[in-house]
Amino acid sequence: MDVAKSIAEFRALRAELAGPVGFVPTMGYLHEGHLSLVRIARERCASVVASIFVNPTQFAPTEDLADYPRDLDRDLELLEREGVDLVFAPDEGVGLYAEGHDTWVELPNLTSRLEGASRPTHFRGVATIVAKLFNIVNPDVAVFGQKDAQQALVIRRLIADLDFDIEMVVGPTVREPDGLAMSSRNAYLSPEERAAAPVLFRSLEHAKALARGGERRADRILADMKALIATAPLVKIQYVSIADAHTLEELDEIDRPALVSLAAHLGTTRLIDNVLLEPNQEST
Amino acid sequence: MDVAKSIAEFRALRAELAGPVGFVPTMGYLHEGHLSLVRIARERCASVVASIFVNPTQFAPTEDLADYPRDLDRDLELLEREGVDLVFAPDEGVGLYAEGHDTWVELPNLTSRLEGASRPTHFRGVATIVAKLFNIVNPDVAVFGQKDAQQALVIRRLIADLDFDIEMVVGPTVREPDGLAMSSRNAYLSPEERAAAPVLFRSLEHAKALARGGERRADRILADMKALIATAPLVKIQYVSIADAHTLEELDEIDRPALVSLAAHLGTTRLIDNVLLEPNQEST
Repeated sequence: MDVAKSIAEFRALRAELAGPVGFVPTMGYLHEGHLSLVRIARERCASVVASIFVNPTQFAPTEDLADYPRDLDRDLELLEREGVDLVFAPDEGVGLYAEGHDTWVELPNLTSRLEGASRPTHFRGVATIVAKLFNIVNPDVAVFGQKDAQQALVIRRLIADLDFDIEMVVGPTVREPDGLAMSSRNAYLSPEERAAAPVLFRSLEHAKALARGGERRADRILADMKALIATAPLVKIQYVSIADAHTLEELDEIDRPALVSLAAHLGTTRLIDNVLLEPNQEST
Repeated sequence: MDVAKSIAEFRALRAELAGPVGFVPTMGYLHEGHLSLVRIARERCASVVASIFVNPTQFAPTEDLADYPRDLDRDLELLEREGVDLVFAPDEGVGLYAEGHDTWVELPNLTSRLEGASRPTHFRGVATIVAKLFNIVNPDVAVFGQKDAQQALVIRRLIADLDFDIEMVVGPTVREPDGLAMSSRNAYLSPEERAAAPVLFRSLEHAKALARGGERRADRILADMKALIATAPLVKIQYVSIADAHTLEELDEIDRPALVSLAAHLGTTRLIDNVLLEPNQEST
Protein backbone atom coordinates (compact mmCIF):
# COMPACT_ATOMS: atom_id res chain seq x y z
CA MET A 1 0.00 0.00 0.00
CA ASP A 2 1.36 3.40 -0.99
CA VAL A 3 0.72 6.55 1.02
CA ALA A 4 0.95 9.94 -0.72
CA LYS A 5 1.29 13.15 1.25
CA SER A 6 1.12 15.64 -1.63
CA ILE A 7 -1.06 15.97 -4.72
CA ALA A 8 1.92 15.60 -7.05
CA GLU A 9 3.08 12.45 -5.29
CA PHE A 10 -0.47 11.09 -5.33
CA ARG A 11 -0.95 11.74 -9.04
CA ALA A 12 2.27 9.90 -9.92
CA LEU A 13 1.17 6.83 -7.93
CA ARG A 14 -2.43 7.05 -9.16
CA ALA A 15 -1.23 6.86 -12.78
CA GLU A 16 0.12 3.35 -12.09
CA LEU A 17 -3.18 1.92 -10.74
CA ALA A 18 -5.20 -0.55 -12.79
CA GLY A 19 -8.77 0.55 -13.45
CA PRO A 20 -11.53 0.72 -12.52
CA VAL A 21 -10.51 2.68 -9.44
CA GLY A 22 -12.78 2.84 -6.39
CA PHE A 23 -12.50 5.70 -3.92
CA VAL A 24 -13.48 6.03 -0.26
CA PRO A 25 -12.94 9.55 1.14
CA THR A 26 -12.69 9.70 4.94
CA MET A 27 -11.72 12.03 7.77
CA GLY A 28 -9.82 9.16 9.41
CA TYR A 29 -10.25 7.60 12.88
CA LEU A 30 -11.65 4.67 10.98
CA HIS A 31 -14.27 2.24 12.24
CA GLU A 32 -16.19 -0.68 10.78
CA GLY A 33 -18.46 1.73 8.91
CA HIS A 34 -15.54 3.09 6.87
CA LEU A 35 -14.08 -0.37 6.38
CA SER A 36 -17.41 -1.66 5.03
CA LEU A 37 -17.19 1.06 2.36
CA VAL A 38 -13.64 0.00 1.51
CA ARG A 39 -14.88 -3.58 1.07
CA ILE A 40 -17.62 -2.38 -1.29
CA ALA A 41 -14.98 -0.57 -3.36
CA ARG A 42 -12.71 -3.64 -3.24
CA GLU A 43 -15.47 -5.90 -4.59
CA ARG A 44 -16.30 -3.62 -7.50
CA CYS A 45 -12.93 -2.25 -8.56
CA ALA A 46 -9.48 -3.41 -9.58
CA SER A 47 -7.85 -0.76 -7.37
CA VAL A 48 -8.96 1.02 -4.22
CA VAL A 49 -7.95 4.51 -3.10
CA ALA A 50 -8.82 5.97 0.31
CA SER A 51 -8.20 9.48 1.52
CA ILE A 52 -7.71 10.67 5.10
CA PHE A 53 -8.16 14.39 5.62
CA VAL A 54 -9.97 16.25 8.39
CA ASN A 55 -11.44 18.93 6.15
CA PRO A 56 -11.46 22.24 8.04
CA THR A 57 -14.01 23.97 5.78
CA GLN A 58 -16.86 21.65 6.79
CA PHE A 59 -16.52 22.62 10.46
CA ALA A 60 -18.00 25.86 11.75
CA PRO A 61 -15.74 27.93 14.04
CA THR A 62 -17.81 26.72 17.02
CA GLU A 63 -17.48 23.04 16.09
CA ASP A 64 -15.01 20.29 16.96
CA LEU A 65 -12.27 20.63 14.29
CA ALA A 66 -9.41 20.82 16.81
CA ASP A 67 -10.82 18.00 18.96
CA TYR A 68 -11.81 15.72 16.09
CA PRO A 69 -10.14 12.37 16.87
CA ARG A 70 -7.10 11.39 14.79
CA ASP A 71 -4.93 8.23 14.64
CA LEU A 72 -3.15 8.04 11.29
CA ASP A 73 -0.93 5.06 12.09
CA ARG A 74 -3.84 2.90 13.14
CA ASP A 75 -5.90 4.09 10.13
CA LEU A 76 -3.15 3.10 7.71
CA GLU A 77 -2.83 -0.31 9.33
CA LEU A 78 -6.58 -0.92 8.98
CA LEU A 79 -6.61 0.21 5.36
CA GLU A 80 -3.62 -1.98 4.49
CA ARG A 81 -5.38 -4.96 6.05
CA GLU A 82 -8.38 -4.29 3.77
CA GLY A 83 -6.16 -4.37 0.68
CA VAL A 84 -6.29 -0.66 -0.13
CA ASP A 85 -3.77 0.17 -2.88
CA LEU A 86 -3.15 3.86 -2.36
CA VAL A 87 -3.94 6.32 0.43
CA PHE A 88 -4.00 10.09 0.01
CA ALA A 89 -3.20 11.60 3.41
CA PRO A 90 -2.18 15.23 2.88
CA ASP A 91 -0.60 17.03 5.80
CA GLU A 92 -3.24 19.03 7.61
CA GLY A 93 -0.75 21.82 8.26
CA VAL A 94 -0.14 22.41 4.57
CA GLY A 95 -3.65 21.31 3.76
CA LEU A 96 -5.47 21.26 0.48
CA TYR A 97 -6.53 24.92 0.42
CA ALA A 98 -4.15 27.35 -1.26
CA GLU A 99 -3.67 30.84 0.09
CA GLY A 100 -6.46 32.98 -1.29
CA HIS A 101 -8.75 29.98 -1.91
CA ASP A 102 -11.97 31.46 -3.29
CA THR A 103 -13.85 28.65 -5.05
CA TRP A 104 -16.84 27.02 -3.36
CA VAL A 105 -19.27 24.39 -4.54
CA GLU A 106 -22.76 25.16 -3.25
CA LEU A 107 -26.10 23.35 -3.45
CA PRO A 108 -28.38 26.04 -2.06
CA ASN A 109 -31.65 24.13 -2.25
CA LEU A 110 -30.71 20.63 -1.13
CA THR A 111 -28.54 21.93 1.72
CA SER A 112 -31.12 24.36 3.12
CA ARG A 113 -32.72 21.59 5.24
CA LEU A 114 -31.84 19.20 8.08
CA GLU A 115 -28.06 19.07 8.61
CA GLY A 116 -27.63 22.08 6.32
CA ALA A 117 -30.09 24.10 8.41
CA SER A 118 -28.30 23.12 11.65
CA ARG A 119 -24.81 23.59 10.15
CA PRO A 120 -25.10 26.40 7.56
CA THR A 121 -21.58 26.20 6.06
CA HIS A 122 -21.10 22.44 6.48
CA PHE A 123 -22.16 21.22 3.04
CA ARG A 124 -20.34 24.00 1.23
CA GLY A 125 -17.19 22.57 2.82
CA VAL A 126 -18.19 18.99 2.03
CA ALA A 127 -19.09 19.67 -1.60
CA THR A 128 -15.93 21.70 -2.17
CA ILE A 129 -13.54 19.12 -0.69
CA VAL A 130 -15.30 16.28 -2.51
CA ALA A 131 -15.00 18.12 -5.85
CA LYS A 132 -11.31 18.69 -5.11
CA LEU A 133 -10.75 15.05 -4.14
CA PHE A 134 -12.61 13.82 -7.22
CA ASN A 135 -10.28 15.92 -9.39
CA ILE A 136 -7.21 14.66 -7.54
CA VAL A 137 -8.20 10.98 -7.32
CA ASN A 138 -10.08 10.68 -10.63
CA PRO A 139 -12.03 7.60 -9.52
CA ASP A 140 -14.45 5.47 -11.53
CA VAL A 141 -16.51 4.62 -8.44
CA ALA A 142 -16.93 6.60 -5.21
CA VAL A 143 -18.39 5.02 -2.06
CA PHE A 144 -20.16 6.98 0.67
CA GLY A 145 -22.10 5.87 3.75
CA GLN A 146 -25.86 6.04 4.29
CA LYS A 147 -25.16 7.20 7.87
CA ASP A 148 -24.63 10.69 6.37
CA ALA A 149 -27.84 10.49 4.34
CA GLN A 150 -28.04 14.13 3.30
CA GLN A 151 -24.35 14.14 2.39
CA ALA A 152 -24.98 11.14 0.12
CA LEU A 153 -27.79 13.05 -1.61
CA VAL A 154 -25.60 16.14 -1.94
CA ILE A 155 -22.75 14.15 -3.51
CA ARG A 156 -25.11 12.32 -5.86
CA ARG A 157 -26.53 15.66 -7.02
CA LEU A 158 -23.04 17.19 -7.33
CA ILE A 159 -21.83 14.28 -9.49
CA ALA A 160 -24.84 14.63 -11.78
CA ASP A 161 -24.90 18.44 -11.93
CA LEU A 162 -21.16 18.92 -12.53
CA ASP A 163 -20.95 15.92 -14.92
CA PHE A 164 -18.34 14.00 -12.97
CA ASP A 165 -17.89 10.67 -14.77
CA ILE A 166 -18.14 8.75 -11.51
CA GLU A 167 -20.48 6.00 -10.33
CA MET A 168 -21.77 6.70 -6.83
CA VAL A 169 -22.37 3.83 -4.41
CA VAL A 170 -23.94 4.25 -0.97
CA GLY A 171 -23.11 1.63 1.66
CA PRO A 172 -25.53 0.79 4.50
CA THR A 173 -25.02 2.18 8.01
CA VAL A 174 -22.95 -0.11 10.21
CA ARG A 175 -24.13 -0.33 13.82
CA GLU A 176 -22.85 -1.44 17.21
CA PRO A 177 -24.61 -4.54 18.61
CA ASP A 178 -27.03 -2.27 20.51
CA GLY A 179 -27.95 -0.36 17.35
CA LEU A 180 -25.88 2.81 17.79
CA ALA A 181 -24.65 3.94 14.37
CA MET A 182 -20.87 3.78 14.15
CA SER A 183 -19.27 7.22 14.16
CA SER A 184 -15.84 8.60 14.92
CA ARG A 185 -17.65 10.98 17.27
CA ASN A 186 -18.88 8.09 19.47
CA ALA A 187 -15.39 8.29 21.01
CA TYR A 188 -16.45 11.54 22.69
CA LEU A 189 -19.29 9.91 24.70
CA SER A 190 -19.05 9.41 28.47
CA PRO A 191 -20.09 5.92 29.68
CA GLU A 192 -23.49 7.31 30.69
CA GLU A 193 -24.02 9.03 27.34
CA ARG A 194 -22.89 5.90 25.49
CA ALA A 195 -25.46 3.86 27.44
CA ALA A 196 -28.22 6.33 26.54
CA ALA A 197 -27.30 6.79 22.86
CA PRO A 198 -29.04 3.69 21.41
CA VAL A 199 -32.41 5.33 22.09
CA LEU A 200 -31.83 7.19 18.82
CA PHE A 201 -31.79 3.99 16.79
CA ARG A 202 -34.66 2.55 18.80
CA SER A 203 -36.75 5.61 17.87
CA LEU A 204 -35.92 5.04 14.19
CA GLU A 205 -36.83 1.36 14.48
CA HIS A 206 -40.07 2.42 16.09
CA ALA A 207 -40.81 4.73 13.16
CA LYS A 208 -40.16 1.87 10.79
CA ALA A 209 -42.50 -0.42 12.76
CA LEU A 210 -45.27 2.19 12.78
CA ALA A 211 -44.93 2.71 9.03
CA ARG A 212 -44.97 -1.05 8.44
CA GLY A 213 -48.12 -1.18 10.53
CA GLY A 214 -49.79 1.25 8.13
CA GLU A 215 -49.26 4.62 9.85
CA ARG A 216 -48.80 7.27 7.15
CA ARG A 217 -49.19 10.44 9.20
CA ALA A 218 -45.73 11.88 9.76
CA ASP A 219 -46.79 13.94 12.79
CA ARG A 220 -47.99 10.82 14.63
CA ILE A 221 -44.72 9.01 14.00
CA LEU A 222 -42.63 12.06 14.92
CA ALA A 223 -44.54 12.53 18.18
CA ASP A 224 -43.96 8.90 19.13
CA MET A 225 -40.26 9.14 18.31
CA LYS A 226 -39.84 12.28 20.40
CA ALA A 227 -41.68 10.71 23.34
CA LEU A 228 -39.40 7.68 23.16
CA ILE A 229 -36.22 9.79 23.00
CA ALA A 230 -37.51 11.90 25.92
CA THR A 231 -37.23 8.80 28.13
CA ALA A 232 -33.43 9.29 27.93
CA PRO A 233 -32.81 12.65 29.66
CA LEU A 234 -29.16 12.82 28.53
CA VAL A 235 -30.30 12.95 24.89
CA LYS A 236 -31.34 16.40 23.62
CA ILE A 237 -33.10 16.29 20.25
CA GLN A 238 -31.98 18.91 17.69
CA TYR A 239 -34.36 17.75 14.99
CA VAL A 240 -36.41 14.73 14.00
CA SER A 241 -37.63 14.73 10.42
CA ILE A 242 -39.62 12.68 7.94
CA ALA A 243 -38.82 13.96 4.48
CA ASP A 244 -38.98 13.01 0.83
CA ALA A 245 -35.98 10.69 0.39
CA HIS A 246 -34.84 12.54 -2.75
CA THR A 247 -35.69 16.23 -2.25
CA LEU A 248 -35.66 16.26 1.58
CA GLU A 249 -38.90 18.24 1.64
CA GLU A 250 -40.79 17.51 4.85
CA LEU A 251 -43.72 15.15 4.39
CA ASP A 252 -47.12 15.29 6.04
CA GLU A 253 -48.08 11.92 4.63
CA ILE A 254 -45.68 9.09 3.88
CA ASP A 255 -46.81 8.44 0.32
CA ARG A 256 -43.36 7.98 -1.25
CA PRO A 257 -39.86 6.84 -0.21
CA ALA A 258 -39.06 8.80 2.95
CA LEU A 259 -35.98 9.55 5.00
CA VAL A 260 -36.51 9.51 8.76
CA SER A 261 -33.54 11.36 10.20
CA LEU A 262 -32.51 12.98 13.44
CA ALA A 263 -29.76 14.88 15.19
CA ALA A 264 -29.25 15.01 18.94
CA HIS A 265 -26.77 16.30 21.47
CA LEU A 266 -25.42 14.09 24.26
CA GLY A 267 -23.44 16.52 26.36
CA THR A 268 -21.17 18.29 23.87
CA THR A 269 -21.35 15.44 21.34
CA ARG A 270 -23.66 15.73 18.36
CA LEU A 271 -24.88 12.49 16.77
CA ILE A 272 -26.99 11.86 13.68
CA ASP A 273 -28.78 8.78 12.39
CA ASN A 274 -31.47 7.84 9.86
CA VAL A 275 -33.50 5.07 8.27
CA LEU A 276 -35.27 4.89 4.93
CA LEU A 277 -38.98 4.08 4.67
CA GLU A 278 -40.37 2.64 1.47
CA PRO A 279 -44.18 2.89 1.30
CA ASN A 280 -44.36 -0.73 0.10
CA GLN A 281 -42.62 -1.91 3.27
CA GLU A 282 -46.03 -1.76 4.93
CA SER A 283 -46.91 -5.14 3.53
CA THR A 284 -43.66 -6.87 4.56
CA MET B 1 -14.05 16.53 -37.54
CA ASP B 2 -16.63 14.88 -35.30
CA VAL B 3 -19.54 16.75 -33.78
CA ALA B 4 -21.18 15.37 -30.63
CA LYS B 5 -24.62 16.51 -29.51
CA SER B 6 -24.86 14.59 -26.23
CA ILE B 7 -22.47 13.95 -23.35
CA ALA B 8 -22.51 10.19 -23.94
CA GLU B 9 -21.74 10.62 -27.64
CA PHE B 10 -19.00 13.11 -26.79
CA ARG B 11 -17.35 10.84 -24.22
CA ALA B 12 -17.20 7.93 -26.68
CA LEU B 13 -15.49 10.12 -29.31
CA ARG B 14 -13.23 11.80 -26.73
CA ALA B 15 -11.88 8.40 -25.65
CA GLU B 16 -10.41 7.94 -29.15
CA LEU B 17 -8.44 11.22 -29.18
CA ALA B 18 -4.65 11.22 -28.89
CA GLY B 19 -3.32 13.29 -25.99
CA PRO B 20 -2.54 15.90 -24.95
CA VAL B 21 -5.98 17.35 -25.64
CA GLY B 22 -6.48 21.11 -25.92
CA PHE B 23 -9.90 22.64 -25.29
CA VAL B 24 -11.47 25.92 -26.40
CA PRO B 25 -14.93 26.51 -24.89
CA THR B 26 -17.07 29.02 -26.81
CA MET B 27 -20.62 30.32 -27.06
CA GLY B 28 -20.36 30.15 -30.86
CA TYR B 29 -20.79 32.90 -33.48
CA LEU B 30 -17.06 32.55 -33.89
CA HIS B 31 -14.67 35.29 -34.94
CA GLU B 32 -10.92 35.63 -35.31
CA GLY B 33 -10.56 35.91 -31.51
CA HIS B 34 -11.95 32.40 -31.00
CA LEU B 35 -9.97 31.03 -33.94
CA SER B 36 -6.74 32.43 -32.51
CA LEU B 37 -7.44 30.39 -29.34
CA VAL B 38 -8.02 27.29 -31.46
CA ARG B 39 -4.65 27.86 -33.13
CA ILE B 40 -2.95 28.13 -29.73
CA ALA B 41 -4.50 24.79 -28.73
CA ARG B 42 -3.51 23.28 -32.08
CA GLU B 43 0.14 24.30 -31.65
CA ARG B 44 0.40 22.82 -28.16
CA CYS B 45 -1.72 19.68 -28.34
CA ALA B 46 -2.10 16.51 -30.36
CA SER B 47 -5.89 16.91 -30.43
CA VAL B 48 -8.18 19.92 -30.21
CA VAL B 49 -11.72 19.99 -28.81
CA ALA B 50 -14.03 23.01 -29.07
CA SER B 51 -17.44 23.43 -27.50
CA ILE B 52 -20.31 25.60 -28.70
CA PHE B 53 -23.00 26.28 -26.10
CA VAL B 54 -24.79 29.52 -25.29
CA ASN B 55 -24.85 28.97 -21.54
CA PRO B 56 -28.11 30.31 -20.13
CA THR B 57 -26.96 30.53 -16.50
CA GLN B 58 -24.39 33.26 -17.22
CA PHE B 59 -27.09 35.60 -18.55
CA ALA B 60 -29.31 37.57 -16.18
CA PRO B 61 -33.04 37.57 -17.01
CA THR B 62 -32.65 41.15 -18.31
CA GLU B 63 -29.75 40.26 -20.60
CA ASP B 64 -29.44 39.13 -24.21
CA LEU B 65 -29.70 35.31 -24.02
CA ALA B 66 -32.53 35.04 -26.57
CA ASP B 67 -30.91 37.56 -28.91
CA TYR B 68 -27.37 36.24 -28.60
CA PRO B 69 -26.22 35.60 -32.19
CA ARG B 70 -26.00 31.99 -33.35
CA ASP B 71 -24.76 30.35 -36.60
CA LEU B 72 -23.82 26.73 -35.94
CA ASP B 73 -23.22 25.73 -39.56
CA ARG B 74 -20.77 28.54 -40.14
CA ASP B 75 -19.08 27.88 -36.77
CA LEU B 76 -18.53 24.21 -37.62
CA GLU B 77 -17.10 25.15 -41.01
CA LEU B 78 -14.63 27.55 -39.38
CA LEU B 79 -13.59 25.00 -36.75
CA GLU B 80 -13.09 22.28 -39.36
CA ARG B 81 -10.88 24.64 -41.37
CA GLU B 82 -8.72 25.14 -38.25
CA GLY B 83 -8.20 21.40 -37.87
CA VAL B 84 -10.37 20.90 -34.78
CA ASP B 85 -10.84 17.19 -34.08
CA LEU B 86 -14.01 17.12 -32.03
CA VAL B 87 -16.77 19.63 -31.32
CA PHE B 88 -19.19 19.39 -28.41
CA ALA B 89 -22.37 21.22 -29.45
CA PRO B 90 -25.19 20.13 -27.16
CA ASP B 91 -28.71 21.05 -28.15
CA GLU B 92 -29.72 24.21 -26.32
CA GLY B 93 -33.25 22.91 -25.92
CA VAL B 94 -32.14 19.87 -23.96
CA GLY B 95 -29.22 21.78 -22.57
CA LEU B 96 -26.62 20.74 -20.05
CA TYR B 97 -28.66 21.44 -16.90
CA ALA B 98 -30.72 18.57 -15.52
CA GLU B 99 -34.11 19.18 -13.98
CA GLY B 100 -33.55 20.17 -10.37
CA HIS B 101 -29.98 21.35 -11.05
CA ASP B 102 -28.74 22.66 -7.70
CA THR B 103 -24.93 22.75 -7.85
CA TRP B 104 -23.13 26.06 -8.36
CA VAL B 105 -19.48 26.97 -8.39
CA GLU B 106 -18.94 30.35 -6.76
CA LEU B 107 -15.89 32.58 -6.27
CA PRO B 108 -17.37 35.17 -3.92
CA ASN B 109 -14.30 37.36 -3.53
CA LEU B 110 -12.84 37.49 -7.04
CA THR B 111 -16.27 37.96 -8.63
CA SER B 112 -17.41 40.78 -6.35
CA ARG B 113 -15.69 43.39 -8.54
CA LEU B 114 -15.88 44.80 -12.10
CA GLU B 115 -17.93 42.49 -14.34
CA GLY B 116 -19.13 40.57 -11.29
CA ALA B 117 -20.40 43.77 -9.67
CA SER B 118 -22.21 44.79 -12.89
CA ARG B 119 -23.52 41.27 -13.54
CA PRO B 120 -24.08 39.63 -10.11
CA THR B 121 -24.93 36.08 -11.27
CA HIS B 122 -22.72 36.05 -14.36
CA PHE B 123 -19.59 34.37 -12.99
CA ARG B 124 -21.55 31.80 -11.03
CA GLY B 125 -22.91 30.68 -14.40
CA VAL B 126 -19.48 30.85 -16.04
CA ALA B 127 -17.69 28.93 -13.28
CA THR B 128 -20.41 26.28 -13.16
CA ILE B 129 -20.51 25.63 -16.91
CA VAL B 130 -16.71 25.60 -17.12
CA ALA B 131 -16.49 23.03 -14.30
CA LYS B 132 -19.11 20.94 -16.12
CA LEU B 133 -17.29 21.23 -19.46
CA PHE B 134 -13.96 20.38 -17.84
CA ASN B 135 -15.50 17.19 -16.45
CA ILE B 136 -17.07 16.32 -19.80
CA VAL B 137 -14.08 17.19 -22.01
CA ASN B 138 -11.28 16.17 -19.60
CA PRO B 139 -8.69 18.36 -21.37
CA ASP B 140 -4.97 18.66 -20.64
CA VAL B 141 -4.88 22.30 -21.77
CA ALA B 142 -7.70 24.88 -21.78
CA VAL B 143 -7.43 28.13 -23.75
CA PHE B 144 -9.31 31.31 -22.84
CA GLY B 145 -9.10 34.85 -24.21
CA GLN B 146 -7.62 37.90 -22.48
CA LYS B 147 -10.60 39.92 -23.81
CA ASP B 148 -12.57 38.50 -20.86
CA ALA B 149 -9.82 39.34 -18.37
CA GLN B 150 -11.78 38.74 -15.18
CA GLN B 151 -13.17 35.47 -16.56
CA ALA B 152 -9.60 34.33 -17.22
CA LEU B 153 -8.68 35.10 -13.59
CA VAL B 154 -11.80 33.31 -12.36
CA ILE B 155 -11.02 30.18 -14.38
CA ARG B 156 -7.37 30.20 -13.32
CA ARG B 157 -8.46 30.39 -9.67
CA LEU B 158 -11.11 27.68 -10.19
CA ILE B 159 -8.57 25.31 -11.76
CA ALA B 160 -6.16 25.83 -8.85
CA ASP B 161 -8.76 25.76 -6.07
CA LEU B 162 -10.65 22.68 -7.29
CA ASP B 163 -7.45 20.85 -8.32
CA PHE B 164 -8.35 20.39 -11.95
CA ASP B 165 -5.31 18.81 -13.63
CA ILE B 166 -5.47 21.29 -16.49
CA GLU B 167 -2.95 23.78 -17.85
CA MET B 168 -4.56 27.16 -18.46
CA VAL B 169 -3.43 29.29 -21.41
CA VAL B 170 -4.67 32.83 -22.06
CA GLY B 171 -4.53 34.11 -25.65
CA PRO B 172 -4.17 37.83 -26.46
CA THR B 173 -7.16 39.94 -27.48
CA VAL B 174 -7.67 40.02 -31.26
CA ARG B 175 -8.74 43.42 -32.63
CA GLU B 176 -10.28 44.90 -35.74
CA PRO B 177 -7.94 47.15 -37.77
CA ASP B 178 -9.29 50.20 -35.91
CA GLY B 179 -8.59 48.62 -32.51
CA LEU B 180 -12.09 47.45 -31.53
CA ALA B 181 -11.79 44.16 -29.64
CA MET B 182 -13.45 41.33 -31.54
CA SER B 183 -16.68 40.19 -29.90
CA SER B 184 -19.74 38.30 -31.02
CA ARG B 185 -21.71 41.22 -29.61
CA ASN B 186 -20.16 43.65 -32.14
CA ALA B 187 -22.79 42.25 -34.50
CA TYR B 188 -25.41 44.20 -32.53
CA LEU B 189 -23.86 47.61 -33.26
CA SER B 190 -25.52 50.10 -35.63
CA PRO B 191 -23.14 51.69 -38.18
CA GLU B 192 -22.95 54.83 -36.02
CA GLU B 193 -22.22 52.84 -32.86
CA ARG B 194 -19.63 50.74 -34.70
CA ALA B 195 -17.91 53.94 -35.83
CA ALA B 196 -17.84 55.26 -32.25
CA ALA B 197 -16.77 52.02 -30.54
CA PRO B 198 -12.98 52.24 -31.13
CA VAL B 199 -12.81 55.11 -28.64
CA LEU B 200 -12.76 52.37 -25.96
CA PHE B 201 -9.51 50.93 -27.23
CA ARG B 202 -8.07 54.38 -27.81
CA SER B 203 -8.73 55.19 -24.14
CA LEU B 204 -6.89 52.01 -23.13
CA GLU B 205 -3.98 52.88 -25.43
CA HIS B 206 -3.94 56.32 -23.86
CA ALA B 207 -3.73 54.76 -20.38
CA LYS B 208 -0.83 52.65 -21.54
CA ALA B 209 0.96 55.68 -22.97
CA LEU B 210 0.48 57.66 -19.75
CA ALA B 211 1.83 54.77 -17.67
CA ARG B 212 4.80 54.39 -20.02
CA GLY B 213 5.42 58.09 -19.57
CA GLY B 214 5.73 57.56 -15.83
CA GLU B 215 2.21 58.41 -14.58
CA ARG B 216 1.45 56.18 -11.60
CA ARG B 217 -1.64 57.89 -10.18
CA ALA B 218 -4.65 55.82 -11.17
CA ASP B 219 -7.10 58.71 -10.70
CA ARG B 220 -5.21 60.86 -13.22
CA ILE B 221 -5.23 58.10 -15.83
CA LEU B 222 -8.91 57.27 -15.20
CA ALA B 223 -9.91 60.93 -15.53
CA ASP B 224 -8.09 61.19 -18.87
CA MET B 225 -9.70 58.00 -20.13
CA LYS B 226 -13.18 59.17 -19.17
CA ALA B 227 -12.63 62.53 -20.85
CA LEU B 228 -11.53 60.80 -24.03
CA ILE B 229 -14.52 58.44 -24.06
CA ALA B 230 -16.84 61.38 -23.40
CA THR B 231 -15.89 62.77 -26.83
CA ALA B 232 -18.04 59.93 -28.26
CA PRO B 233 -21.58 60.72 -27.09
CA LEU B 234 -22.95 57.33 -28.22
CA VAL B 235 -20.66 55.57 -25.72
CA LYS B 236 -21.93 55.42 -22.12
CA ILE B 237 -19.31 54.26 -19.62
CA GLN B 238 -20.44 51.69 -17.05
CA TYR B 239 -17.07 51.46 -15.31
CA VAL B 240 -13.42 52.23 -15.94
CA SER B 241 -11.01 50.56 -13.53
CA ILE B 242 -7.33 50.24 -12.76
CA ALA B 243 -6.91 47.22 -10.52
CA ASP B 244 -4.31 44.76 -9.27
CA ALA B 245 -3.92 42.33 -12.19
CA HIS B 246 -4.25 39.30 -9.89
CA THR B 247 -6.67 40.25 -7.10
CA LEU B 248 -8.65 42.93 -9.02
CA GLU B 249 -8.47 45.27 -6.03
CA GLU B 250 -8.63 48.87 -7.21
CA LEU B 251 -5.25 50.64 -7.18
CA ASP B 252 -4.49 54.22 -6.21
CA GLU B 253 -0.93 53.90 -7.41
CA ILE B 254 0.26 51.67 -10.21
CA ASP B 255 3.06 49.95 -8.33
CA ARG B 256 2.45 46.40 -9.59
CA PRO B 257 1.02 44.66 -12.66
CA ALA B 258 -2.34 46.32 -13.27
CA LEU B 259 -5.44 45.59 -15.31
CA VAL B 260 -7.05 48.62 -16.95
CA SER B 261 -10.55 47.52 -17.84
CA LEU B 262 -13.83 49.07 -18.85
CA ALA B 263 -17.42 48.34 -19.75
CA ALA B 264 -19.65 50.63 -21.80
CA HIS B 265 -23.06 50.65 -23.41
CA LEU B 266 -23.55 51.66 -27.04
CA GLY B 267 -27.32 51.74 -27.36
CA THR B 268 -28.44 48.36 -26.00
CA THR B 269 -25.08 46.71 -26.65
CA ARG B 270 -22.64 46.24 -23.79
CA LEU B 271 -18.95 46.01 -24.68
CA ILE B 272 -15.90 45.31 -22.50
CA ASP B 273 -12.18 45.69 -23.14
CA ASN B 274 -8.91 45.81 -21.21
CA VAL B 275 -5.14 46.13 -21.35
CA LEU B 276 -2.45 45.03 -18.91
CA LEU B 277 0.08 47.48 -17.52
CA GLU B 278 3.42 46.20 -16.25
CA PRO B 279 5.21 48.78 -14.08
CA ASN B 280 8.46 48.04 -15.95
CA GLN B 281 6.81 49.03 -19.24
CA GLU B 282 7.54 52.62 -18.26
CA SER B 283 11.06 52.29 -19.56
CA THR B 284 10.15 50.76 -22.92
